[in-house]
Amino acid sequence: MDGFNFSTDVLVRFAETDAQGIAHHASFVVWLEVARVAYLTEHAGGYQGIRSQGFEALTTEVHVRYHRAAYFDDRLTVWARCVGLRGARFSYEYAIERENELVADGHTLHAIVDASTRRPTRVPTWFAEAVARAEA
Amino acid sequence: MDGFNFSTDVLVRFAETDAQGIAHHASFVVWLEVARVAYLTEHAGGYQGIRSQGFEALTTEVHVRYHRAAYFDDRLTVWARCVGLRGARFSYEYAIERENELVADGHTLHAIVDASTRRPTRVPTWFAEAVARAEA
Amino acid sequence: MDGFNFSTDVLVRFAETDAQGIAHHASFVVWLEVARVAYLTEHAGGYQGIRSQGFEALTTEVHVRYHRAAYFDDRLTVWARCVGLRGARFSYEYAIERENELVADGHTLHAIVDASTRRPTRVPTWFAEAVARAEA
Amino acid sequence: MDGFNFSTDVLVRFAETDAQGIAHHASFVVWLEVARVAYLTEHAGGYQGIRSQGFEALTTEVHVRYHRAAYFDDRLTVWARCVGLRGARFSYEYAIERENELVADGHTLHAIVDASTRRPTRVPTWFAEAVARAEA
Repeated sequence: MDGFNFSTDVLVRFAETDAQGIAHHASFVVWLEVARVAYLTEHAGGYQGIRSQGFEALTTEVHVRYHRAAYFDDRLTVWARCVGLRGARFSYEYAIERENELVADGHTLHAIVDASTRRPTRVPTWFAEAVARAEA
Repeated sequence: MDGFNFSTDVLVRFAETDAQGIAHHASFVVWLEVARVAYLTEHAGGYQGIRSQGFEALTTEVHVRYHRAAYFDDRLTVWARCVGLRGARFSYEYAIERENELVADGHTLHAIVDASTRRPTRVPTWFAEAVARAEA
Repeated sequence: MDGFNFSTDVLVRFAETDAQGIAHHASFVVWLEVARVAYLTEHAGGYQGIRSQGFEALTTEVHVRYHRAAYFDDRLTVWARCVGLRGARFSYEYAIERENELVADGHTLHAIVDASTRRPTRVPTWFAEAVARAEA
Repeated sequence: MDGFNFSTDVLVRFAETDAQGIAHHASFVVWLEVARVAYLTEHAGGYQGIRSQGFEALTTEVHVRYHRAAYFDDRLTVWARCVGLRGARFSYEYAIERENELVADGHTLHAIVDASTRRPTRVPTWFAEAVARAEA
């Protein structure tokens, strides 16, 4: 997938389908999170690394476009890249594929906050550096 | 809420929270659907009415902006309006409030398909008329 | 429903259905929790009351028997009673009905723990008394 | 794990946690299903194999005992065995481990039904034979 260095796979669970016989559209939002967590595990010490330093990453925006239905037991590849770090904020962009066919794409926006005060706080340098290396 | 004629309430379930101590962002996507279903029940014979005539309404796009965290047991008011019917397509716009404070807003896009062929099909006239009355 | 003093209603959400065209069996487990929360709201100051005093109620066992399928948009009545308080432990028993037809029944076991130490702690007297009144 | 020939791993998703900071108890019910699906993929042509022959496997009972909390990003091993095939019915037994520590155990009961009539139908011979081989 052009422009993406990272992907992780998900297998559509039966619990994630709905009475239309397809994966429910809210399931995709969870898969984007699964991809972010896998990305952080590979590149930045895991989301627990962020949390253990007293930060939380909030999700402030979600945008998904559904191009094709996904079905039970489909193996989907979720491509993710982290872009646009500035101050407390950063974004992810995504493309979800099934056998080289685009199933969905989208983006999310996030803000780093101090876990105790819930106030936005500058993205830690080590995180920005890890993302810069991952996206180089 | 300016510009909205319809709302329904949801009470944040414990199962909808996450380890950040707030409602998980994917839960909001489900609440938008709850609001669409309640809207159709009030205005257009229910979603089952659409399904029983051999149609399905697919969700082709979801966009949510999160302005404030929602918490367990919060009573949220989900305002919804149906806009932009054209051919097989229509949209919903939403605002989620807690005691007159904006918690989130967003929109979804949908396409009516024939349930057996899964091909887009013109929004039925009775549905377009029901929406026109609801949004008048 | 014989032997139950309390019930709350849930409307089956589309997101709670699966590709069998019925409510997914894990959704019922969430509805039992919805009923416990509603029970506590009515009888014991709400689950937030328990949490605000430094306690958490853990779920240590879940048992559900499914007698009939539930469908999208079904209105289900979840009957719940709290029984067997002893030390840190208590149970709930449930029956889920649709128009006087038994859809599912089951029980859950719970333990009160100190929220900071996560160690079991005696059910607070005010809680035991509220339950005794509710089940009288 | 004594008596089990099959296991599959799950990584606890952030969306599966709750405001107690642990995996929500309903998430475990979904993981049991993930294990059944993986079991069928390995041993009996997959759940789609059952569905493509016009059968559905309904879940008629779920029982889970929670021994320890599971946390975000925990890697859990879900052991599963299929037992007690008789007529239209069969069961699964489960043990969920984290690094050789028992986190939860339980069982589920199932009934094979004809997908169109929803009536119980004898477990197909090829399925019974595949299970017999798997559990030998």
